Amino acid sequence: MKVGVVGAGQLARMLQQAAIPLDVALRVLATSADEPALQVVPDSLVGASLAELADGCDVVTFEHELVDLDEVAALERSGVVVAPSSAALSSVVDKGRTRAVLASHGMPMPVWRPVASMADVDAIGWPAVLKATRHGYDGRGVWVVEDEAAASAVLASGVGLLAEERVPIEQELALLLARRADGAVAAYPVVETVQRDGICHEVLAPAPVDPVVAKAATELAVEVAEAIGVVGLLAVELFRVGDRLLVNELAARPHNSGHWTIEGAATSQFEQHLRAVLGLPLGPTDVRAPAVAMANVLGGVDPSARLGEALAVADVHVHLYGKAPRPGRKLGHVTAVGTDLDEVRARAAAAAAVLSS
Amino acid sequence: MKVGVVGAGQLARMLQQAAIPLDVALRVLATSADEPALQVVPDSLVGASLAELADGCDVVTFEHELVDLDEVAALERSGVVVAPSSAALSSVVDKGRTRAVLASHGMPMPVWRPVASMADVDAIGWPAVLKATRHGYDGRGVWVVEDEAAASAVLASGVGLLAEERVPIEQELALLLARRADGAVAAYPVVETVQRDGICHEVLAPAPVDPVVAKAATELAVEVAEAIGVVGLLAVELFRVGDRLLVNELAARPHNSGHWTIEGAATSQFEQHLRAVLGLPLGPTDVRAPAVAMANVLGGVDPSARLGEALAVADVHVHLYGKAPRPGRKLGHVTAVGTDLDEVRARAAAAAAVLSS
Repeated sequence: MKVGVVGAGQLARMLQQAAIPLDVALRVLATSADEPALQVVPDSLVGASLAELADGCDVVTFEHELVDLDEVAALERSGVVVAPSSAALSSVVDKGRTRAVLASHGMPMPVWRPVASMADVDAIGWPAVLKATRHGYDGRGVWVVEDEAAASAVLASGVGLLAEERVPIEQELALLLARRADGAVAAYPVVETVQRDGICHEVLAPAPVDPVVAKAATELAVEVAEAIGVVGLLAVELFRVGDRLLVNELAARPHNSGHWTIEGAATSQFEQHLRAVLGLPLGPTDVRAPAVAMANVLGGVDPSARLGEALAVADVHVHLYGKAPRPGRKLGHVTAVGTDLDEVRARAAAAAAVLSS
Repeated sequence: MKVGVVGAGQLARMLQQAAIPLDVALRVLATSADEPALQVVPDSLVGASLAELADGCDVVTFEHELVDLDEVAALERSGVVVAPSSAALSSVVDKGRTRAVLASHGMPMPVWRPVASMADVDAIGWPAVLKATRHGYDGRGVWVVEDEAAASAVLASGVGLLAEERVPIEQELALLLARRADGAVAAYPVVETVQRDGICHEVLAPAPVDPVVAKAATELAVEVAEAIGVVGLLAVELFRVGDRLLVNELAARPHNSGHWTIEGAATSQFEQHLRAVLGLPLGPTDVRAPAVAMANVLGGVDPSARLGEALAVADVHVHLYGKAPRPGRKLGHVTAVGTDLDEVRARAAAAAAVLSS
C-alpha cells in the first residue's frame, strides 16, 4: 500500500515512523527541500503537483491545511481517493466556514460573526478576539483587541477575519478521534493542552477533568466529526468554562495534542491516521499508563547538540524534528509516561527545557 | 549525528524507526537492491565499500555478522569509530572463537570442541550437535547427528564445525543488554524464546522463571559483555537445565529476542543500540506491562495482503519487514502487551497466524 502525503513537515516525518512497521510506503510532497520529512522518506517530491503525488498511491492525505481546495476537488474527480475529502477539508481550512458549519449543527461555540466591517466587531463587544480565517497557527493570526483603534489596525491588513467574544477560559482541552469512510470512529481520551501566548506548551493525558466533562467532550467531538464527514484524524480543540464546553478550532490531520499517543496510547495517532485513511481496522485508544505528559521543544537553539543531556533525564521519549532552530519554532517534543501526573509533567518539562535553552 | 549501518535488512529498517525521533541520520549498506531497509532510508548504498559507508558518519555499526573482520580492522585503523569493534566482533562472528573466548573466562557452556576429524565428534559422544562456525542462523548450520554415518555427511561438506553435547534443554532464555564504550551497561529483563526447528517463534517477556534464575542470567550476560568488550547491544542466548544456565550463542546487534521492547519496554532495543554506539545515556529497560509476547511472522504468503485481518485482532502491534515471501522466512512480527502472559501470547499468536497463513 502507498499513501501520498501533502506536506513534509514533522507530522509527515512522524507518519513515516508509523508507516514503516505496517509496510505502508509513503510519498511526501514538500514545497521546499529543507522540510524535515525529506530526511526520512526516500520517495519524495518537491514542488510537484497533486496528480504527481497521487500517481500510484492508494490514497492521498494531508499533514497541513495550506491546500487549494479546487485542486483537491479536481484530483477527486480524476478518481483519486482523498482522505479527508475536499468537502470535509472545506469545513476545517477556513475558520469562518468551520464556525458556519458547526453553527448549522447547533454546536456550542463562542459568540462569533464574520467581519465585514468594524460594526461586526462592535457587535461582539470589547475586548474582542479577531481571527484570520485562514493560515493561522501557533497563536499567529489571532489578536485580542481592546478597542476600535486596535481592531482597525488588524482590519486594515486586509486578511479575512472573524470576530469572537473573549471567553473566560478555565481550561483548554482537546479531543482527538479517527473516523473511517464507513463511519467507524475511535476516540482518544480527552487531554488538557497547556497554552502560553497561543502556543501549546504541554499536553496532559488523560485531562484532569470531571468524567462527566470527559464524556461530553467525546460526544461533542464525535458529533463534529460526523457533521463534517471527516475521514482520518480529527482534532477538536475545546474551551472549558465551568462545565460548559465550547468548540474552538478543528484540524483534520495528526495534531500536536496527540503526540503523547506515540508512547502513551495503545495506538499512536500516526498509525491510527494511516489505518483510517486506508480503511483498515482502527486500533484501541486506551492510555497505556495512568499519566502521560508531553512537552513541546520550542526554541532558537539546536536541540540535537543537547540530546545527550536530555536523555540523561531518566525515562523520557525525545522526538526531534530535524528543523532549523528559530525562536518559538516547534523543534521537537518530549513524552513521559508514569503513574503520577505532576511527576510525569515535571519529567517531560525538564527534558524539554534542556532541549529548548 | 550520522550512523552507518552495515546491512539493510529488517534490523536496519527497525533502527530507522528509532533513529527518526532522535534526529539521527542513518546510512545503510545493502548487498542487493531488494533489501528492506532501502525502502525507508533515503541515504543508502548498494554494494559499496565500508569506507564509502563510513564517510561522514560518527560511527559505523552492524545489523548482521557477515562481515570481513580484516576490512573492519582496516576501517578502524583509518580512524573510523566502529561499534562493536573488530576485536569484539571476532568473538561473536565465529562460533568456535566464541566458545574459546567464553571458555577462557570460565563461562558455563555445553561440552564442546572444535572439529578437525570424526575423532572430535566421537569425543563428545552420541547424539552430538554439529554447528557451522560461521554464517548459521534460524536453525541453518546446526545438525543433530545420531551416529558417525550421519556426522560424516556433515563433515564431508567441508564447512568449519564445532561439536557439542546435546543438552537436555528445559527452557531457552535470552538476555539482551547494551554496553557503551565507557563500560556503562543496561540489561533488559530475561526473556523466554520459544523455538521450533531451531527458529524462534515466540518471545515471552519477562521470562516465566524463578527470580534467582533471572538474576543469574543477567549477571552471566554482563560478564560475557565485559569479556568480549562489546559496544552496542549484545544478545546472549541461554539454555536452562534445572537451575543451571549454559551460554548457547551470542549476537552483537539488535536481536529477534528483543523486538518486544519496541512497545513493551521503556526503551526499544533499536533506540538503545543507537544510544550505546553514539555514547548517549542508556535508557531504562523496564517492562512497560506485566506481560509482553512477541510472535514471529514466518511464511510463504504476502502478509501485507492480510494486514487488515491481522489488525482486527484487537490490540496488537504489527511489524512487517517488506520482504518477499518464502517458506519459513521471517517476514515480520507481532507484539501484544497486557497483564496475563497466556492472554498476550494468544493475542500475538492469533495475529501472527493470520499473517503467516
